[in-house]
Amino acid sequence: MVAQLEYSSAVGTQVTSTILQNQVHTYTFDQLPLQCGGQLGPITLAYETWGRLNAQGDNAILITHALTGSSHAYDPAYPDDPKVAWWNLLIGPGRVFDTSRHFIICSNVLGGCYGSTGPSSIDPRTGHSYGMRFPIITIRDMVHAQRRLIEHLEVRELAMVVGGSIGGQQALEWAVTYPELVRKVGVIAATAAQSAQAVAFSEVQRQAIMADPRWLCGDYIPGQGPATGLAIARMLAMITYQSEEAMELRFARNSVQRNECPSPTFSPDLGGRFDIENYLYYQGAQLARRFDANSYLYISRAMDLYDVSEGYPSLDAALRRIRSKALFVGVRSDILFPAVHIHTLADKVCATGGDATYVELDSPHGHDAFLKEWHQMAEALRQI
Amino acid sequence: MVAQLEYSSAVGTQVTSTILQNQVHTYTFDQLPLQCGGQLGPITLAYETWGRLNAQGDNAILITHALTGSSHAYDPAYPDDPKVAWWNLLIGPGRVFDTSRHFIICSNVLGGCYGSTGPSSIDPRTGHSYGMRFPIITIRDMVHAQRRLIEHLEVRELAMVVGGSIGGQQALEWAVTYPELVRKVGVIAATAAQSAQAVAFSEVQRQAIMADPRWLCGDYIPGQGPATGLAIARMLAMITYQSEEAMELRFARNSVQRNECPSPTFSPDLGGRFDIENYLYYQGAQLARRFDANSYLYISRAMDLYDVSEGYPSLDAALRRIRSKALFVGVRSDILFPAVHIHTLADKVCATGGDATYVELDSPHGHDAFLKEWHQMAEALRQI
Repeated sequence: MVAQLEYSSAVGTQVTSTILQNQVHTYTFDQLPLQCGGQLGPITLAYETWGRLNAQGDNAILITHALTGSSHAYDPAYPDDPKVAWWNLLIGPGRVFDTSRHFIICSNVLGGCYGSTGPSSIDPRTGHSYGMRFPIITIRDMVHAQRRLIEHLEVRELAMVVGGSIGGQQALEWAVTYPELVRKVGVIAATAAQSAQAVAFSEVQRQAIMADPRWLCGDYIPGQGPATGLAIARMLAMITYQSEEAMELRFARNSVQRNECPSPTFSPDLGGRFDIENYLYYQGAQLARRFDANSYLYISRAMDLYDVSEGYPSLDAALRRIRSKALFVGVRSDILFPAVHIHTLADKVCATGGDATYVELDSPHGHDAFLKEWHQMAEALRQI
Repeated sequence: MVAQLEYSSAVGTQVTSTILQNQVHTYTFDQLPLQCGGQLGPITLAYETWGRLNAQGDNAILITHALTGSSHAYDPAYPDDPKVAWWNLLIGPGRVFDTSRHFIICSNVLGGCYGSTGPSSIDPRTGHSYGMRFPIITIRDMVHAQRRLIEHLEVRELAMVVGGSIGGQQALEWAVTYPELVRKVGVIAATAAQSAQAVAFSEVQRQAIMADPRWLCGDYIPGQGPATGLAIARMLAMITYQSEEAMELRFARNSVQRNECPSPTFSPDLGGRFDIENYLYYQGAQLARRFDANSYLYISRAMDLYDVSEGYPSLDAALRRIRSKALFVGVRSDILFPAVHIHTLADKVCATGGDATYVELDSPHGHDAFLKEWHQMAEALRQI
């Protein structure tokens, strides 16, 4: 317990506002009916845009971010640094997401903690943070909220919706829910519904967060949240985002050499520390510094609950709605969304009369390949 | 915190003594020099035997158990029930481990909590449980301790040493450390050294245990240990023991129907509970009831630290020592010890002049297949 308090004070838990120093806009609207019932409102979405909307309102590309991501997909001030914005190398003049031709939009997801309404937002009914009184939200809700933003921006038709992981779930949902609005869709490292194994990994992460005594049933004080639990959750998540092959290439059985990072529990190493362990401690601490634990619970749950067929007679019936030219991208070494399932999904879209292409990234980097394999990603995206 | 206390009292944390009601013997010896330095003693090993040692003392088979296993590999009272003893269907008169021909020995591992000396044992220097003052132990130490037991039982030569997972690591270590004593060796779902990914999964589990405020740096009161943390650790472990394919076959995205089990944190379900989640809660609670958290830390760490080449000029030099006829068994769907690595290891043994056979179980059950695929296991074991 003492160790946990120390860890929390060592890593801090404030959500950094550095990314919000860029041109992040907000749009607020009154109410959103939710898929699981009830309403949520008012809702604010934080978003960034690059390039200009044309007069026809049809050159916009909506980019959807991954679980702990933000609207900051691109940083025109540092366009060649992959670390300052999550899809930096794919966006910009002349790049695959060409800001000289397209109006690129990326909004922080509903439920997030980077400016959009989420569990850490103030509930107007109580004057306090929602915490666990935030309603269950789904991928469909996220997409409906984005639709409101798109309308606000006077986009008439989306040239493309594209994202990876939970962003890929949103892209697919867009193509099924609003077929008439989406010309092209890029579903990357995502499937029609999360597998049992992926739900299982996700639930272990949530249990680790909720087991932290500082979680306080979600009513932690900002900056004093469950840093230990969130760090442990992130450690596990990082394993699932990579692959056995990638970890062996990078870490193997090397001992840590330098820059030792405290473990989430400050416990002593048992017989020495492996480099892979130190790496995971570092990644855990980094996330605990920058992300809200309740947002993590709600957004990861939305991934688990996602099933594009919900509300339709069958998966085929849902997929038959797609009018977009569709690109599905799998990663050979992805644990979370095995490539075979993405390939099957693309085939199903074709079988229901759709126009779908499947591309597989030949990468050892697992799920994270869509945030690392710039060349292969650009090649894949040029297929549609 | 309140929820955690409730969980602990709901699942209890006593190590059940039911298995000790069978004929479990103990052997105690004075001291063991440890691989990481220092001595540990006195050491007690709890063990069971079936069948009779012949006059030549050369018909013994040593069976080594998995991480949370015990000496109870076989139960002659219920020989057809796979649940009462972990390799029950492989052992007995006329079975692949034939008790009418062989003297079968299985001992609880050093560091364990089923009768052998481990962190919950009394440290004679203090009169209290060792807790985290227990020294770091390795697979090699476990094997040296087993060697002392074998001598005590007047076994002159082992007809076979065989086990899966950490039991497979011990089997390999036996063949390398005591080549003259082991005629045959069966290394199942184990490799020459744990991968970075397996270490990573293992460390997340330990962090979950040590993050539990009831862990108290290992000085918990028996029966009041870190049940929540241990249950979360077990939930993760269960995922790694199975496979995406097996979980999809059994659970898919089914909602829980009946027998709801409390989650380790007693937290509310977020938008419904999946069957896979309830299953993991159940498995977590079961382990928290029967296993000692500190034993889990030490034994899992021994797996991570294992590298058969340690102390030898190279892996080849270590493997060249093997004189046993060797069987290596991989499982097609194993995440923890991917089949390809086990196949490679078998090839290396052959390349260094050894006599090794590789058999791959064609099973969706992942790492756990060696505890489930009775027919394939028996077929594989008949190869040597």
